Amino acid sequence: MSQKLGKASVKPEEPVYILNSASVVGTKEGQGPLGLLFDKVGEEDMFGCETWEDAESSLQKDAVGMALEKAGLKPEDVSFIFAGDLLGQSIATSFGISTYQIPLLGVYGACSTCGESLTLGAMSISGGFADKVVCVTSSHFASAEKEFRFPLEYGSQRPLSATWTVTGSGAFVLSGSPGTGAKKARARITGMTIGKIVDYGLKDSMNMGACMAPAAASTLEQHFIDFASQPGDYDKIITGDLGKVGQKVLIDLLNDRGYDISEQHMDCGIEIFDAQTQDTHAGGSGCGCSAVTLSAYILKQLEENNWKKVLFMPTGALLSKTSFNEGKSVPGIAHGLVIEAL
Amino acid sequence: MSQKLGKASVKPEEPVYILNSASVVGTKEGQGPLGLLFDKVGEEDMFGCETWEDAESSLQKDAVGMALEKAGLKPEDVSFIFAGDLLGQSIATSFGISTYQIPLLGVYGACSTCGESLTLGAMSISGGFADKVVCVTSSHFASAEKEFRFPLEYGSQRPLSATWTVTGSGAFVLSGSPGTGAKKARARITGMTIGKIVDYGLKDSMNMGACMAPAAASTLEQHFIDFASQPGDYDKIITGDLGKVGQKVLIDLLNDRGYDISEQHMDCGIEIFDAQTQDTHAGGSGCGCSAVTLSAYILKQLEENNWKKVLFMPTGALLSKTSFNEGKSVPGIAHGLVIEAL
Repeated sequence: MSQKLGKASVKPEEPVYILNSASVVGTKEGQGPLGLLFDKVGEEDMFGCETWEDAESSLQKDAVGMALEKAGLKPEDVSFIFAGDLLGQSIATSFGISTYQIPLLGVYGACSTCGESLTLGAMSISGGFADKVVCVTSSHFASAEKEFRFPLEYGSQRPLSATWTVTGSGAFVLSGSPGTGAKKARARITGMTIGKIVDYGLKDSMNMGACMAPAAASTLEQHFIDFASQPGDYDKIITGDLGKVGQKVLIDLLNDRGYDISEQHMDCGIEIFDAQTQDTHAGGSGCGCSAVTLSAYILKQLEENNWKKVLFMPTGALLSKTSFNEGKSVPGIAHGLVIEAL
Repeated sequence: MSQKLGKASVKPEEPVYILNSASVVGTKEGQGPLGLLFDKVGEEDMFGCETWEDAESSLQKDAVGMALEKAGLKPEDVSFIFAGDLLGQSIATSFGISTYQIPLLGVYGACSTCGESLTLGAMSISGGFADKVVCVTSSHFASAEKEFRFPLEYGSQRPLSATWTVTGSGAFVLSGSPGTGAKKARARITGMTIGKIVDYGLKDSMNMGACMAPAAASTLEQHFIDFASQPGDYDKIITGDLGKVGQKVLIDLLNDRGYDISEQHMDCGIEIFDAQTQDTHAGGSGCGCSAVTLSAYILKQLEENNWKKVLFMPTGALLSKTSFNEGKSVPGIAHGLVIEAL
């Protein structure tokens, strides 16, 4: 039974269902335009922990716990957990989800990790390897600044092309069956396109939107080819955290390739903050950005049938502080999932 | 078609074949007991590059290129690449394999990453999502010391429980069909057990064998239960990089659970160096350790029918320098694969 499609895509023979999900965010996200939609907004950004890294771990722990609870499941009902974050050696994950004792497959795709974890999770169910899996990703503004840039105490200034790392974690319970009644699934995953590394040689880590846009364009074009689809086939084409600069680059790059996505395009990083009043410049970013927006906002639109079908495509910038300090470029990657209303 | 087995295992309905593979190592590994078996031994450990990180990237690039060439394949014949390394944000991978332009699914499981990449690669084929995939992992002594401990120039002393990170990369081409003639596969993957995070609270990053042994014991016990097997069913039970201290702990922990693996146990980290003459203390370690030993030594034994069936179980220590400096423990994880002669 082949579930391959075209050069880089996968089309499960039966849809994989997003049974339930949860979003946990920090104070700034709670004050943003989507604030009222999140399942939990922290009272302060340490979340009662002693380090920023532990705070990020607690986000993952809470998101997974809430997603399982909302789905009426216990950890032992789940076969695998696909998890990752932005920190070196994914420590937010290692110290966040260990208490659940679910077999772990760790993933890394920078801010595209939410898309990667959902892709692999859906494949594991569609391939008959699991009945239910959990996918979780996170980011935290302060742990990310420390990991990639400077300690917050330095008070570094940020150019207008910079994005603001979202403090948040989104967890998703995937299942092979749609559930019923109060346990009905939120949406279904019907296809995935796996991205490759795209490197235009850009080196500005304070303009990651521009660094990632070529990867988003590559995956999107491949998706249209593999699925023989057009922008108009989707109610929304949603990137993770390109921000305002990256959005413009993406739309331009796709125009050059004969696709006009200006009507359908939406970016989680642009939606999650009000750049005018929240001083977030180009938009939100981080593994958590697309994950919490999917859980709190996108799935809600699909549930309410405001949208029927979206392409959800988180984007990642594959840099580290070491690669940046060594003068390397910032390659990008993006993974896309077709998510449809039930 | 369920391919689930027990609580944490997967049994593909049809075996997945390791079509071919390649190993590239540094000078010290070339001088070790397995030296003559590796496909390529570098003349110097910078591999012609300007940074240690680039050197590690070149290992991955060479290993993937050689594995594809040996299998008679081009990059475009491969659906996905499952890849990872130990560096923060997996930069050895991001800058190593981008030229192949194969859709990438990045994985992280510390030194268990080779097992994780092969597990997910085999699942993607067995699930009907791909005909051929590549799995690659790497480590480099100098980039790892810089990432996790101290710059080499400090000349830090190392306790006898410490391991020596292997400079090397192993790449594997997986396929759903066994090939024929000169293109016959090397071995077949017939089952996988996915590990969970196990944390006994040990904090000594200079004794990672002891930190990882409980995870190896957990996965191994679960494997025996899920497959209803016993140690005697395997010619070898092979861990990745427990070293001499971790080996003793693992054998003791398994004894306590009613399994005697002292006859079958082998550790790639113990095999790859001669601790007496190479000053490597407890043994070799790193993502590359189990990968190059699998490619150069284990698959050769299976090809020559010296062994019929092994359990290959790389082990990972889920720490970062940040988690270590913040006083956290060193949790472990291990993923096991049943690999059999054709």
